[in-house]
Amino acid sequence: MIVVKVGGSEGINYEAVAKDAAQLWKAGQRLILVHGGSSETNRIAEALGHPPQFLTHPGGLTSRLTDRKTLEIFEMVYCGLVNKRIVELLQREGVNAVGLSGLDGRVFEGRRKEAVKYVENGKIKIHRGDYTGSVERVNTTLLTLLLEAGYLPVLTPPAISYQGEAINTDGDTAAAMLATAFKAEALLLLSNVPGLLANFPDESSLIHEIPADRVSEYMGVAQGRMKKKVLGAVEAVQGGVGRVVFGDARTPNPISAALAGRGTVVR
Amino acid sequence: MIVVKVGGSEGINYEAVAKDAAQLWKAGQRLILVHGGSSETNRIAEALGHPPQFLTHPGGLTSRLTDRKTLEIFEMVYCGLVNKRIVELLQREGVNAVGLSGLDGRVFEGRRKEAVKYVENGKIKIHRGDYTGSVERVNTTLLTLLLEAGYLPVLTPPAISYQGEAINTDGDTAAAMLATAFKAEALLLLSNVPGLLANFPDESSLIHEIPADRVSEYMGVAQGRMKKKVLGAVEAVQGGVGRVVFGDARTPNPISAALAGRGTVVR
Repeated sequence: MIVVKVGGSEGINYEAVAKDAAQLWKAGQRLILVHGGSSETNRIAEALGHPPQFLTHPGGLTSRLTDRKTLEIFEMVYCGLVNKRIVELLQREGVNAVGLSGLDGRVFEGRRKEAVKYVENGKIKIHRGDYTGSVERVNTTLLTLLLEAGYLPVLTPPAISYQGEAINTDGDTAAAMLATAFKAEALLLLSNVPGLLANFPDESSLIHEIPADRVSEYMGVAQGRMKKKVLGAVEAVQGGVGRVVFGDARTPNPISAALAGRGTVVR
Repeated sequence: MIVVKVGGSEGINYEAVAKDAAQLWKAGQRLILVHGGSSETNRIAEALGHPPQFLTHPGGLTSRLTDRKTLEIFEMVYCGLVNKRIVELLQREGVNAVGLSGLDGRVFEGRRKEAVKYVENGKIKIHRGDYTGSVERVNTTLLTLLLEAGYLPVLTPPAISYQGEAINTDGDTAAAMLATAFKAEALLLLSNVPGLLANFPDESSLIHEIPADRVSEYMGVAQGRMKKKVLGAVEAVQGGVGRVVFGDARTPNPISAALAGRGTVVR
């Protein structure tokens, strides 16, 4: 089993991802796709007059401020636009894909963080009423049912809270939890950079390999969202995933290339 | 088995639909939900600067002009906003719902009508490049798999063409095909009117029952989209569905009420 997470930044080659996934799937490779949709969510949110806002948390990570209206826009883009685009591309390639959010069959379950700490002008503040949270549990029953019946699952946030509320959640972390639940041989995190860069955005500074037990040394060079990716990789490898590869989703055959070791390999 | 189609017009009480569905489901009633999303699609399309356009066909039926951009907006609203709203409401009621479009598992399959005839100023014209079509085949395998494992399927257009393209399709017809495929005991078509009205929009002119073999007599009184509903009802009853009920989705317990015969019953 491999888990492939396709990011939601500009420049992702969805056609190439779908073609490559279909080829591997037909050759007998079991796989689950997970995707994002952040840049298109920003674009649609702007167009709908509800521009995106981001919170910087103590520790430096950022997340999307998700009021109810933002959650609805998020669902429109992730579950509607991007999920169905990928399912359609896979179906065209002859793969019987099934698109699901974390709500469906409670695939991604977690706790809603209704109150979120953030930093503004150096002070820690609290934003209330947010629809965000972290995936704490991956329910594999539905996914196993689908895989055994020959369907390729295409997953997307949001997740679902224990109370049954939709919650915006980080897709990379969800993918890492998923890969861990299935003890996947590989988790591929594909985005619009060649991998983990020592000097972002200098692509020639690509780090080729990170030994899992020395990941903390590399956290200093990780910036912005890349930090979350590294954190997810560590957890996944510690949880029993064979290897994590940060690969490039702008290239032809992005999945095969990452499987072959192109990008940054964490093991 | 009952199939419940919830329309996409203004005034639908989704909370009541979900509560009622959950209660029936927990009491052992097998059911599949199908939903629309037309009025919210119009609203979002306007807001995104791509206002809806409708074609009137020879014969008087109308349909949404669906270019690629409209298809994407359609998917955002139907598969993202409305589908996940209903799944979330059902999950809150403790029902493990799974939302799917017709693309997922190729549930609704049909032929793309790339060239669509329409009437303008009394002349028949042809619009090309449309992403519409009719459902010709319901693939029940995935639905049966889900139902047997205890998941409540929540279905929505678009359908998928034989070539793997997403196609906008009429939800009522898709629901009728679905009910026929499962030889459902009842197909409930819930919208924002009490049923079939002899003098639309006069709600006191509700037609309480239509014998299936005399449906053609009633076609004269059916107006606009209601025509499609009556056509779908005839096909369903002829195809082996126990009865079709046009019910009111604005009321509390809209499913139970329709099952009890409130609305227009076709049998």
